[in-house]
Amino acid sequence: MNYLDYAASTPVCTQALELFCELSVNHYANASSLHDAGSEANGVLRYCREQLAVYLEGCADRVFFTGGGTEANIFAIISLAKALPAQRRHILVSQMEHSSVQHAMSMLSEQGFSVSILQPNQYGMVTTERLEAQLRPNTGLVSVQHANSETGIIQPIAMLAKRLRKDGILLHTDAVQTFGKLEVSHAVLGADAITLASHKVYAPKGVGVVSLGPNVAWQPLYPSSSHEGGFRPGTVNVPLIGAFVAACEAIWPSRSADREHTRSLRDRLIAGIEKQSLPIRYFSPSAYDVLPGIFGAFYQGLEGQYVMLTCNRHGVCIATGSACRATEQGLSPALKALGLSHHQGAQYIRISFGRGSTIADIDALLDVLARLAQHQHQR
Amino acid sequence: MNYLDYAASTPVCTQALELFCELSVNHYANASSLHDAGSEANGVLRYCREQLAVYLEGCADRVFFTGGGTEANIFAIISLAKALPAQRRHILVSQMEHSSVQHAMSMLSEQGFSVSILQPNQYGMVTTERLEAQLRPNTGLVSVQHANSETGIIQPIAMLAKRLRKDGILLHTDAVQTFGKLEVSHAVLGADAITLASHKVYAPKGVGVVSLGPNVAWQPLYPSSSHEGGFRPGTVNVPLIGAFVAACEAIWPSRSADREHTRSLRDRLIAGIEKQSLPIRYFSPSAYDVLPGIFGAFYQGLEGQYVMLTCNRHGVCIATGSACRATEQGLSPALKALGLSHHQGAQYIRISFGRGSTIADIDALLDVLARLAQHQHQR
Repeated sequence: MNYLDYAASTPVCTQALELFCELSVNHYANASSLHDAGSEANGVLRYCREQLAVYLEGCADRVFFTGGGTEANIFAIISLAKALPAQRRHILVSQMEHSSVQHAMSMLSEQGFSVSILQPNQYGMVTTERLEAQLRPNTGLVSVQHANSETGIIQPIAMLAKRLRKDGILLHTDAVQTFGKLEVSHAVLGADAITLASHKVYAPKGVGVVSLGPNVAWQPLYPSSSHEGGFRPGTVNVPLIGAFVAACEAIWPSRSADREHTRSLRDRLIAGIEKQSLPIRYFSPSAYDVLPGIFGAFYQGLEGQYVMLTCNRHGVCIATGSACRATEQGLSPALKALGLSHHQGAQYIRISFGRGSTIADIDALLDVLARLAQHQHQR
Repeated sequence: MNYLDYAASTPVCTQALELFCELSVNHYANASSLHDAGSEANGVLRYCREQLAVYLEGCADRVFFTGGGTEANIFAIISLAKALPAQRRHILVSQMEHSSVQHAMSMLSEQGFSVSILQPNQYGMVTTERLEAQLRPNTGLVSVQHANSETGIIQPIAMLAKRLRKDGILLHTDAVQTFGKLEVSHAVLGADAITLASHKVYAPKGVGVVSLGPNVAWQPLYPSSSHEGGFRPGTVNVPLIGAFVAACEAIWPSRSADREHTRSLRDRLIAGIEKQSLPIRYFSPSAYDVLPGIFGAFYQGLEGQYVMLTCNRHGVCIATGSACRATEQGLSPALKALGLSHHQGAQYIRISFGRGSTIADIDALLDVLARLAQHQHQR
């Protein structure tokens, strides 16, 4: 099988899996228990928190673990929103956010917050100008993803943060797709809140992270939550969190090599498409700022779903967009934001790759794409 | 180390861990992805759902996975409450519920539901009479745990369900402590909603279950949630869910043997206490209906915390109550419900054991308890 759907979920690295097993066998105690077994589990937890604080240039006591990226986005946004002063209850979110951000917004709307949608420019970018045009005197919080999971388009978070800081407006960024690939930290991005998810960085599914800046006020989603410094209730999953940090430690030293690797695979894919003159349009790096590991494209004249299923029949796994919306009809927010028609959007395919991807994976994909073009030609 | 804190978290069984590794390596794809890798992960998920439906005598398409027991309780209660008719928005919960149930209640109170607290009798039991006295014409939902995590006291869920059914009132029961130990199913308990958690049944932490009866109306906590049939958003954790079901399958055949085993350890503990006339009061099985694996006791004249720490110094892990409240001050709701004074409550210790516990564990504990009595005597 040629797996080219890393943006949906990555394979788990050996280091993460081995540590998970070791912790499950030796540190299964509840980290909140006060006996030694609990304290040892808590020691592992503390180490993980400190390690993430180093990566994120944050504070260990403001790194909160959740059960995944969705929960991290929901908890981050609602916890920040609940602590906003009464005269600052307007929230701005980009049009392309993950559905979890939409969930947080619908909950906040019900609670009397006003929410508005920030549209990007024609290249899918939330520029400072776009942002500025929608700021209100009562804007308290802005949420813009670092990169989109469907298109890979990267947002200029640091610039947005700089602008928002002037007015004391908080910025949350969903860095689920970029952590471990681009530089993601409070210092680099200037964001007040950053969220991560384990299964996009070669760790098992089931861990999310919310990291808050040092002076950011927050109120728990559930008052008197008993874990994670009051941030989230529920037994803290020490073995999974340990596995997540083990995966981070495994990938950290080779981040630039990995970036080069994915970039060269992307170049090979583009070269193959161009050489064979395949009827495929893609986000050209000259116009769009995209993550090298996410290649979004339009197969002209064919439905993305048909291309995906044909690839699948030939043992190549690609996607037509976010797995979180795979069963939904209609254009996704990320494609809508680019001003695409339904017809264009229906042609969309997403190819995503990473550390474990090979030249053979790309070549197998190119074979199927070429075969499709031949069929199209014969018809 | 003699680990006697199974009610906080159990060790993970080999079968669960092995399957977790296998699924993490071979089925890491997102179960919502439409390619074969996703379909295969989804196939595992379907099997797990069906298997749980068999155990719970429920419907596979009404078994919803969450990230843990806390999330399961919150989602179960809020999803049921949101679908209650306008004239049925009164909710009754027992005084001893897990903090996650309290979280759900505070959220529902904010949303205009009226919530009231159901007090048990002097033996900690929510009787049909107690229930009846608090029912209102607008009561729509009742939540009573199957057994308490701190005291082990079992509630007569089937009887309560029978009474509630007469008035068309829904019943949710938190069966986190009893699943795999007592009979837990929709048919046996008569509950409309049952919640479970993986780490109390020899599986890794990180999976919760909400099982709903066939005709129970519900509304998602987050509208348009994309996973779990709309019940919960967030990538479904197939490897962990598989591990949970593997643990269930491992323990299922030996459930009565395990019950006998824990009962005999409990008898040994009681016999040791009585033989040495240790100054320990406990919930006598003749007065209280308790889970055999949870032994709640009061060390007269000593603080529970002191007893726990002394045990810990001698390599025996016990608790003073729920790990979810370990750092909180004051009497827990479960002890308050028994009408205990703060002074009595402070003497509380919880010893909990299961499949992996041995006679040596109990004897090591008895040694420390006897040593404490000697010291007390010498002072």
